[in-house]
Amino acid sequence: MKPATPAQVRIVEVGPRDGLQNEKALVATADKIALIDRLSATGLQSIEATSFVSPKWVPQLADAAEVYAGIARRPGVHYPVLVPNEKGYERAREVGVEEIAVFTAASEAFNRRNINAGIDESLQRFAPVMARAREDGVRVRGYVSTVLGCPYQGEVPLADVVRVAVALHRMGCYEVSLGDTIGVGTPGKARAMFRAVAAEVPAAALAVHFHDTYGQALANILACLEEGGAVVDAAVSGTGGCPYAKGASGNVATEDVVYMLRGMGVETGIDLDALAGTGRWLAALLGRDSGSKVAKALAAS
Amino acid sequence: MKPATPAQVRIVEVGPRDGLQNEKALVATADKIALIDRLSATGLQSIEATSFVSPKWVPQLADAAEVYAGIARRPGVHYPVLVPNEKGYERAREVGVEEIAVFTAASEAFNRRNINAGIDESLQRFAPVMARAREDGVRVRGYVSTVLGCPYQGEVPLADVVRVAVALHRMGCYEVSLGDTIGVGTPGKARAMFRAVAAEVPAAALAVHFHDTYGQALANILACLEEGGAVVDAAVSGTGGCPYAKGASGNVATEDVVYMLRGMGVETGIDLDALAGTGRWLAALLGRDSGSKVAKALAAS
Repeated sequence: MKPATPAQVRIVEVGPRDGLQNEKALVATADKIALIDRLSATGLQSIEATSFVSPKWVPQLADAAEVYAGIARRPGVHYPVLVPNEKGYERAREVGVEEIAVFTAASEAFNRRNINAGIDESLQRFAPVMARAREDGVRVRGYVSTVLGCPYQGEVPLADVVRVAVALHRMGCYEVSLGDTIGVGTPGKARAMFRAVAAEVPAAALAVHFHDTYGQALANILACLEEGGAVVDAAVSGTGGCPYAKGASGNVATEDVVYMLRGMGVETGIDLDALAGTGRWLAALLGRDSGSKVAKALAAS
Repeated sequence: MKPATPAQVRIVEVGPRDGLQNEKALVATADKIALIDRLSATGLQSIEATSFVSPKWVPQLADAAEVYAGIARRPGVHYPVLVPNEKGYERAREVGVEEIAVFTAASEAFNRRNINAGIDESLQRFAPVMARAREDGVRVRGYVSTVLGCPYQGEVPLADVVRVAVALHRMGCYEVSLGDTIGVGTPGKARAMFRAVAAEVPAAALAVHFHDTYGQALANILACLEEGGAVVDAAVSGTGGCPYAKGASGNVATEDVVYMLRGMGVETGIDLDALAGTGRWLAALLGRDSGSKVAKALAAS
């Protein structure tokens, strides 16, 4: 039997935030703005623009307000920004942000190590942000990280992934992105994870977010598409690396995802050549090789 | 519905032949022998050792006889070698080869350009080699190249892929390897191709051979496993490059395939750590980065 795959997939471009956040080379504010504007010209409908976490933690994105204020907002394109708490929410709103993303991990150990709080407490911390977003008509996306493994506790129980995803959806996230933060997942586990979550949260409200640390991202995405997934996070040029494995690959490259989907007859609305050109421009800016095999092959052929 | 995947997969390691053949750095005979012996110690059951094509065409493998004579043959491990014609067959037999591989393309244009013969004529040229192999009790593997696209004619009709695969199987090949030579395939097309061939040749007599030029190899392999495929060609460290796209990726890395299968609970009998170590040793020898994301991540973590 041929597994069904969706007719359309929406890509959420996370390069300007999740990608750059883990790149060493500091990128100028004007270049970040140019990156986002180039990306919005490719047909992408969702571009995560920056992060309003404390500049102490992510120096690369200390210019969040300037970047957001500088981009040429294209009608129909969403520009979510990461927001950790009410303070971040206020900073984001001051520059007119209309969509935010909140985040927590499915791993107890990861949460305790990163924010000194368990899963439940981390969820409670979002409550005031969610309430204000609701009042302000701001859309909220939710991230669940470490869904297929944790650098501290190893295995992450499926039940914890489901519980966190359900909680974020119930709190008002229109979409919950399931993230294999350290890229250890393989297709059988990705499929089982997506299926377990989709039994409790509508598949249409789920996104998948894979890192290519072990080269498994496209295969994992394929498995999730076959389970009804239709939203995929990706970063142009595969930026990001992995803070838990120096020298390893980062986010799955948007170019490679779009190439796969186009070959499968799945519509994304994205101009692959323009996207690949933007990826090569970014790689040159960062002084590194493109993390996209498609970008390299297109440049070579 | 969860697609079925096989309980066991056999990996055919093609690095010493298909990988090295397209690497620029000349590798010393002793190092080739060391590579094959290291590979056979990892649990691999099939290792394509070299090629008895004319040294004029593949200088890297001009030492085929010395390499084959030098390897420490491990009981239970098969060491096929590529053979283009009767002359190559004789050279191979002189050093005691017990398994050979023959090759042709599913693309008319590719065959005409490479061997100045159409598909049918190329098949006829194997007849004498197949007859002698049968007499000598030599096993024959068959390669069909360009199954998902051709650098000269573009699209390759599925019917041609099926026809060539059926012909090789009928001529006596115990296994027919279906190769996406230029790595352009995507999972929907790979699945349809495998299914079409498996309707005419038993799936147990088929192997899949993907190049990672566009990063699609693991996703394509996954799709074929779901269709009953249980033999996968791969090259340690992802060697090989693509003669039609300089700078692009080569064969799918064996390490990445084994990591995926292990994560899916599919048995390969291969020691991943030993394999990754061999891949890193080879990459150092070639003076290049490993083409395996798994090898890089394991080294970094």
